[in-house]
Amino acid sequence: MRALHILTVAFATGLAACNRGESREEAEARYREEAAAAQQAIEAQVQRFVQHVNAGHADSVAMLYTENANLMPPGLPTVTGRAAIHAFFADTSGGGPFTLTLTPVEIIARGPIAIERGTYTAQIGPVTDAGKYLVHWHHVQGEWLMADDIWNSDQGGEM
Amino acid sequence: MRALHILTVAFATGLAACNRGESREEAEARYREEAAAAQQAIEAQVQRFVQHVNAGHADSVAMLYTENANLMPPGLPTVTGRAAIHAFFADTSGGGPFTLTLTPVEIIARGPIAIERGTYTAQIGPVTDAGKYLVHWHHVQGEWLMADDIWNSDQGGEM
Repeated sequence: MRALHILTVAFATGLAACNRGESREEAEARYREEAAAAQQAIEAQVQRFVQHVNAGHADSVAMLYTENANLMPPGLPTVTGRAAIHAFFADTSGGGPFTLTLTPVEIIARGPIAIERGTYTAQIGPVTDAGKYLVHWHHVQGEWLMADDIWNSDQGGEM
Repeated sequence: MRALHILTVAFATGLAACNRGESREEAEARYREEAAAAQQAIEAQVQRFVQHVNAGHADSVAMLYTENANLMPPGLPTVTGRAAIHAFFADTSGGGPFTLTLTPVEIIARGPIAIERGTYTAQIGPVTDAGKYLVHWHHVQGEWLMADDIWNSDQGGEM
């Protein structure tokens, strides 16, 4: 019995030596679970973003971007950093009635990075614009935030 | 000696039971190595893309996109799939002298996905355009290909 016990301890020590590692299959299963969780969390963030933009709450909108995020609007140079992004949305919300809708089409996540592709409509007074966007999300301290955000219109002819 | 041998075998069997798993530290080191390799491979693909676009080789350009890729040009709806992307670039190259430059600014990779942010200039006859882009790269059968590609101009006023 004692010899068996020593063998068991040796076996268990060997197991422990792998430092709670995971097999390829375990890792793949974890990736799938993480990706599903990320997708759900990002969809919720997209809803918050739309609500805050349409309410003209530039403060709350800016908090959905990372500290050093890049906002890439058509017709303007890249807007970098949360403060500059805040100013961009404060300007936009000052321009009168504005209604944004976003439709995420695909969200792909792996570890702390995710990519969201979708379509948008924007009603600005009597004018409606429609187009597409791509967002790079980053998982920062338990929260999914936008690190890069770019969009363009389907209308107006090619540049 | 024999008892020691049995203990060693038991320990090794325990180690093997973790299914060649890796620790969190080993995984992090691997992520860094993979990301560095991805960055280098993607930079090389970007160079190939620019050469093929400027040479008007729509066939070779299309092969740098995944089978179901989304090309998102300003002023046009999303162009989906390699055949449609081929047609887009065949049209573009038929429009006369065209010189594209791309400057990757940041490439972030994790596992089979990567995000590239950069700037471009495009000389179309006497007109020069400058802007920014975001590309979602995907690692498919040993090769990095574009899965989503979007850009817009810095010029022309905000939409």
